[in-house]
Amino acid sequence: MYENYDFKALLELAESRQFRQLKQELKTMNEVDIASFLEELAPELMLVVFRLLPKELAAEVFAYLEDSDDQQRLINALSDRELREVLDALYVDDTVDIIEDMPANVVSRILRNTDPATRSQINTLLRYPKDSAGAIMTTEFVSLRPEDTVAQAFHRIRREGVDKETVYTCYVIRRRELVGVVTVRRMLLAQEDTPIQDIMETRLLSVHTLEDREVVAQMFARYDLTALPVVDGDGRLVGIVTVDDAMDVLEEEITEDFERMAAIVPVDKPYLKTGVWETVRSRIPWLLLLMLSATFTGIILTGFESALAACVVLTAFIPMLTGTGGNSGSQSSVAVIRALSLGEVGLSDTLAVVWKEARVAVLCGLCLGGANFVKMLLVDRLLMGNPEVTVAVALVVCVALALTVVCAKVVGCLLPIGAHRLGIDPAVMASPFITTVVDAISLLIYFATATQVLGI
Amino acid sequence: MYENYDFKALLELAESRQFRQLKQELKTMNEVDIASFLEELAPELMLVVFRLLPKELAAEVFAYLEDSDDQQRLINALSDRELREVLDALYVDDTVDIIEDMPANVVSRILRNTDPATRSQINTLLRYPKDSAGAIMTTEFVSLRPEDTVAQAFHRIRREGVDKETVYTCYVIRRRELVGVVTVRRMLLAQEDTPIQDIMETRLLSVHTLEDREVVAQMFARYDLTALPVVDGDGRLVGIVTVDDAMDVLEEEITEDFERMAAIVPVDKPYLKTGVWETVRSRIPWLLLLMLSATFTGIILTGFESALAACVVLTAFIPMLTGTGGNSGSQSSVAVIRALSLGEVGLSDTLAVVWKEARVAVLCGLCLGGANFVKMLLVDRLLMGNPEVTVAVALVVCVALALTVVCAKVVGCLLPIGAHRLGIDPAVMASPFITTVVDAISLLIYFATATQVLGI
Repeated sequence: MYENYDFKALLELAESRQFRQLKQELKTMNEVDIASFLEELAPELMLVVFRLLPKELAAEVFAYLEDSDDQQRLINALSDRELREVLDALYVDDTVDIIEDMPANVVSRILRNTDPATRSQINTLLRYPKDSAGAIMTTEFVSLRPEDTVAQAFHRIRREGVDKETVYTCYVIRRRELVGVVTVRRMLLAQEDTPIQDIMETRLLSVHTLEDREVVAQMFARYDLTALPVVDGDGRLVGIVTVDDAMDVLEEEITEDFERMAAIVPVDKPYLKTGVWETVRSRIPWLLLLMLSATFTGIILTGFESALAACVVLTAFIPMLTGTGGNSGSQSSVAVIRALSLGEVGLSDTLAVVWKEARVAVLCGLCLGGANFVKMLLVDRLLMGNPEVTVAVALVVCVALALTVVCAKVVGCLLPIGAHRLGIDPAVMASPFITTVVDAISLLIYFATATQVLGI
Repeated sequence: MYENYDFKALLELAESRQFRQLKQELKTMNEVDIASFLEELAPELMLVVFRLLPKELAAEVFAYLEDSDDQQRLINALSDRELREVLDALYVDDTVDIIEDMPANVVSRILRNTDPATRSQINTLLRYPKDSAGAIMTTEFVSLRPEDTVAQAFHRIRREGVDKETVYTCYVIRRRELVGVVTVRRMLLAQEDTPIQDIMETRLLSVHTLEDREVVAQMFARYDLTALPVVDGDGRLVGIVTVDDAMDVLEEEITEDFERMAAIVPVDKPYLKTGVWETVRSRIPWLLLLMLSATFTGIILTGFESALAACVVLTAFIPMLTGTGGNSGSQSSVAVIRALSLGEVGLSDTLAVVWKEARVAVLCGLCLGGANFVKMLLVDRLLMGNPEVTVAVALVVCVALALTVVCAKVVGCLLPIGAHRLGIDPAVMASPFITTVVDAISLLIYFATATQVLGI
């Protein structure tokens, strides 16, 4: 946790109702930390403490509350006048984020308490699909004309800037079309009478309103952006995405990737705020599916029951074999999943990826097979004195191991690429799924090798 | 891939040596994309194309080359004058990043070609540990005095701003100590004769030079920052970290987490740029370690050889049991690992986490055990007509399954927290490790249950 404050002391102040002193403390704190602190309080106390905050700060704190239930409770408790003050101070995109999590009656109360201009902006933003650039952009930006001078531009920023989410990049519009961007830095270094078109940057990066928000977030990381213009089909500027929202998207998407890779259906809430039932619901589907697909592995084992009975020692190496296969496969799949999501690898690289993984797999397979051969003869046979571990048995296990590693790594890199090609999130092709597939493959290889070498 | 350009057409222009036209095309491109394009070219051609770029752009492109071998090749090919021009245009922190990956002779050539002031800044930055705030900060920022007026501040920004990485947040210093920050936005909205101390923000966020760079990156995400001051032990401002570098750190750290979670020793290079041997070296250690620790599972299986021989059908359900246990465990461990790294969960939450996971585990265990009981009797016994699958056997499997899920989830959440407490990266406690531990646990539970219920 990054709080630089003594939360316990603050809690005591609140609970012993020493509000005057608490108010002084809160004034020195960052809005994000105040929001974290409020979320630790009981509902009634939260409202009292929230009312201690100066207007501007209150709105910022409100936007940073992580739990939409807390936001809803506050909205319900605030008077219309108080609510209006909070809403006035919020940026439009933050208001939209809040609205998206609220029930209809709260939404209509929010809309009733915003001015008509803001209301129409909110309605526009709400119309974009949830995962699109349109849904995370703001409509509050400074726009200039190409023929404006630097002095006029500064005049405009001074007049309008208070309400704009960023003023450092201004957007130059000709006939509603985006023709350039100019930074305040560039304007500060130019003469007052320079026309904007002489200093604006025309090498433009922009995205379409319907672009996937994950792609938008990746663009911020790739191009080191602080803001990115969003245009409609006709190249008209309709909004901008700012870096703070892009970072939030990046964190959310990465959490989703982590969850999918661990066979969890993504949940939208922080870990400790997710209820037990909700957590169970997010974990059961994949567990159930993977459990049932292990039936195939069971069938394979049953099919070779007689072979196993003839050479019982083979059973002892099954977990090692399937485990190593699963680990090898997930290494490859995770490496490819990450490379895909960083844009380091595309569909055109499929052959290069498979070729690389195949070579890595052969080397890993030889190395692991060799190590295991030595280990079986030294440890299992000599040290632990197990006479059943013959050279032939060790050979079976190690050849099967090497072959399994090769198959696992190739399957491990192919599955995410295949998913990507089909438009499925490659992250679902991580360890749990791979492990189940590789379990079956490795057993088939194992028994085929055993039948060949031992003649059982 | 996010390139908006036709790389193939550009490649053809370069290879057919139509440099005049290529130069025109390059001028319209983003520096990041030009760098990607250069890295596709053969070494000699890369140098020729690099020389086509205007000076300022060339330096930016140079900083964005991902492969340090390419950078080294370019540095070696450039004349001293050309190198000086590139270095002059680079920000100090970018130069330091480059230097960190170069051999000694190249480093000394770089240092010889920078002016003394920059050289001393570089040397200062190089002295910080690789993963610290000091190593990712820049020493180029605008500093003001509290008594400066807004007009004086703007004058200073105009004079010094060109060389500073960001001018939008200025740092207010009194007797070398950081006392406030003021944004250009705030200055633009204030009167020209207002003293800076009247409008500066004194609620300060800062980090110590030795703070872990991952914590720094997380602070940018949490507080929506664009820059963060770095101070020494005496509260003196020594540098700032900017949001673009913080985002790079975030991406690198997340890639490391992904790799560790897949039992890969983190590599610093993009997927396709990592050689086969290097990849093998990053994957073999954990595979080998996990393979050898599967010896325990083997020992357990050997110990129960007679029990298995008495009731061979039990073998068929081992992969399902260990697989489901492993998946349940990795769900919990990954959820906790992510919550830890987002700062949603701290050491003080250990009890809350275990209590939550325990309840989730019991519900999941009952649900999976029940589903499997029905499945075994319906599918395995009735549908596939396997007479060995008796109610008693189904009971053994399902009770063992439920117990395994509970143990797996509790172990799964405890291991990352334990690692965190010991200062080890919790990410190594993900699926591969958990799976190996849970394999052993689930077999012990399985055979204990079987011995009790079936009396074998």
